[in-house]
Amino acid sequence: MYRIGVDLGGTNIAVGLVDEQLNLVLKKSVPTGAHRPAQEIVADIAMLCRALCEDKGIALGEIACVGIATPGIANHDTGVVEYSCNLPFRKFPIAELLKKELGVSTVKIENDANAAAWGEAVAGAAKGTKNSVMITLGTGVGGGIIIDNKVFSGFNYAGGELGHIVIQVDGAPCGCGRKGCWEAYSSATALIRMTKEKIEECRASGRATIMADQPKVTGRTACDAMRAGDEAAKEVYDTYVKYLASGLATIINIFQPEVISLGGGVSGEGQSLIDALLPIVRKEQYGGGVVPMTELRIATLGNDAGIIGAAMLG
Amino acid sequence: MYRIGVDLGGTNIAVGLVDEQLNLVLKKSVPTGAHRPAQEIVADIAMLCRALCEDKGIALGEIACVGIATPGIANHDTGVVEYSCNLPFRKFPIAELLKKELGVSTVKIENDANAAAWGEAVAGAAKGTKNSVMITLGTGVGGGIIIDNKVFSGFNYAGGELGHIVIQVDGAPCGCGRKGCWEAYSSATALIRMTKEKIEECRASGRATIMADQPKVTGRTACDAMRAGDEAAKEVYDTYVKYLASGLATIINIFQPEVISLGGGVSGEGQSLIDALLPIVRKEQYGGGVVPMTELRIATLGNDAGIIGAAMLG
Repeated sequence: MYRIGVDLGGTNIAVGLVDEQLNLVLKKSVPTGAHRPAQEIVADIAMLCRALCEDKGIALGEIACVGIATPGIANHDTGVVEYSCNLPFRKFPIAELLKKELGVSTVKIENDANAAAWGEAVAGAAKGTKNSVMITLGTGVGGGIIIDNKVFSGFNYAGGELGHIVIQVDGAPCGCGRKGCWEAYSSATALIRMTKEKIEECRASGRATIMADQPKVTGRTACDAMRAGDEAAKEVYDTYVKYLASGLATIINIFQPEVISLGGGVSGEGQSLIDALLPIVRKEQYGGGVVPMTELRIATLGNDAGIIGAAMLG
Repeated sequence: MYRIGVDLGGTNIAVGLVDEQLNLVLKKSVPTGAHRPAQEIVADIAMLCRALCEDKGIALGEIACVGIATPGIANHDTGVVEYSCNLPFRKFPIAELLKKELGVSTVKIENDANAAAWGEAVAGAAKGTKNSVMITLGTGVGGGIIIDNKVFSGFNYAGGELGHIVIQVDGAPCGCGRKGCWEAYSSATALIRMTKEKIEECRASGRATIMADQPKVTGRTACDAMRAGDEAAKEVYDTYVKYLASGLATIINIFQPEVISLGGGVSGEGQSLIDALLPIVRKEQYGGGVVPMTELRIATLGNDAGIIGAAMLG
């Protein structure tokens, strides 16, 4: 049987059909229109689900499960989104509404970062493990925790906010209101900030850096310039890696998962990022050399992790 | 039926008889003699178990379970202590040996901080919850995680090292080799260090503080002086509370447990400590006001948490 996964973002709603081999066989999306009433967003999700089935020539009754990855606090037991920052959801029974709208038997929901972690656990970088953590290095730092083959989000479904562990008391301000969150040091946004600060520092001191010649600073600017031999860029990268590695060692000391998978834009650096992180992580983690160690891997499902994870919730 | 819990420390072996109402009805202890071969330590544990039964007039066959709380990495599935810093245990099959020695059917083991957390979960401050975390504020900062009514320690049994999450990158050196661990800011040892530093600072600047008049600086010096109206002592306490609260908010953002119980020497401050922590924790945590919130409580079992938790492992 097929499954459907919904990745409900602040910008787009992406809906995908997943087959029994966990392949995403068809995907459609529309803009979210996050300013609209929640019911209209649900109607659009239902419309995309129907369109996928029509295109593939299957009936909605052949769908084993529809899963929704949503921003915010998702009660995966009741199907109610308790709260979302980016969407108009306040104690919103989205699973029940979509079930009614589509006439399917099972609709499950999960927080989007958790769903992506679940996707990587069932079909991606952590496939075959029972305990894994996914860290998404994008605009923010997202976290998803899998324990004993289940998403773990605490008694109130709000846990797993791994970007909001403080790694520097009184440090850089974070969007969440705290100071010194991991997110404020290890997101792509933080890397861009560090890059800009270094460019300013170079300008002020008359130090040469090819980073200053780029038309736009992105999360790749420092990495690319470093590879071109730019020393100032290497300093930015080393600083970024130091903070990221510190957070990862902390995650290991807490969870000792079989695998930590790294997703999001910065993970595009691939194995070279893992190679830079590992020496620091191994030095700072507990239990090294005595018991089997957590592996660091680059996530493999890319932007589809949320859809696949959502589809596999039921 | 009765159960026996063993709290195996670097200094003492304490063994207790626990009844069906989870009361510790009898306790005996001997010095550990940690320099001795591991087998001799096991023989002493067995001797104490027999002595408890004899004193109470019951047969060893009436013991439902013997549980051991041990320092280090305890594989609770195999009963092997993989490694201990303070005891001569290297892949040491302690459960099997004690089972043979006593002729009982069930011997379980757990890391000591985890066993204490389990004790508080079944019979102490977190009784009635399925998800809780215990933080012990003693010589170090210990952590124990209970998820779905089970001790969680990761795939290699080395997890739950909550004292070794870095809250200040490049911060105060920690015994584990990292810099800036929570333990280096929130243990009783850290509180004593902060107190001594403040006393030195006051001496150097000629500022009056009654802390300087104490014959010996302990974890209570700053708290007692603060209550006597000493401003410098209040600064020490506020700083300590700030770091402790930051770590607790981080634990909440990760786990969203129903209860965090605080044990160890510093928790002797009681409700006034909770009252000082809560405003900061509530401000920094995720999900406040939207979903039910984690309660902070003082642990209730004191030094017996490990014995009771160990007894209840089977």
